[in-house]
Amino acid sequence: PEWQIVERDGIMQLERVFKFPNFQQALDFTYKVGQLAEEADHHPALLTEWGKVTVTWWSHKIKGLHKNDFILAARTDEVAA
Amino acid sequence: PEWQIVERDGIMQLERVFKFPNFQQALDFTYKVGQLAEEADHHPALLTEWGKVTVTWWSHKIKGLHKNDFILAARTDEVAA
Repeated sequence: PEWQIVERDGIMQLERVFKFPNFQQALDFTYKVGQLAEEADHHPALLTEWGKVTVTWWSHKIKGLHKNDFILAARTDEVAA
Repeated sequence: PEWQIVERDGIMQLERVFKFPNFQQALDFTYKVGQLAEEADHHPALLTEWGKVTVTWWSHKIKGLHKNDFILAARTDEVAA
């Protein structure tokens, strides 16, 4: 599944599920996306489970989506590639 | 907050939120708990956000809680200590 725009508690968010063959690869992906987030000083929610990571980007300050979220979503895809 | 038993989609789960002063420390905690999970071959859901990680343990096979979940919850606390 590609990126989807979801609304939670009135906040628009950009979300994508990345699939992996095991837990370790999911965990490693989480860590890499986390490092990307630190470098960008923009932080997603990362839900790590066996075989998948759900990445959710949104801009806390504006309680919605900003251009930055779409840029970080594209960079997340590069981490997965 | 300590561990709480929650029910989601009819599945009992053991959940605790761990707080941190920043994103990096939350991410590092996620990675450590993930390594613990790999060693135990029992895998939680780990929701990493800025300043907090929500850890959720349950036994997928029985769709509920097993002694193992409580053991892993205690070991998660040791990682946080």
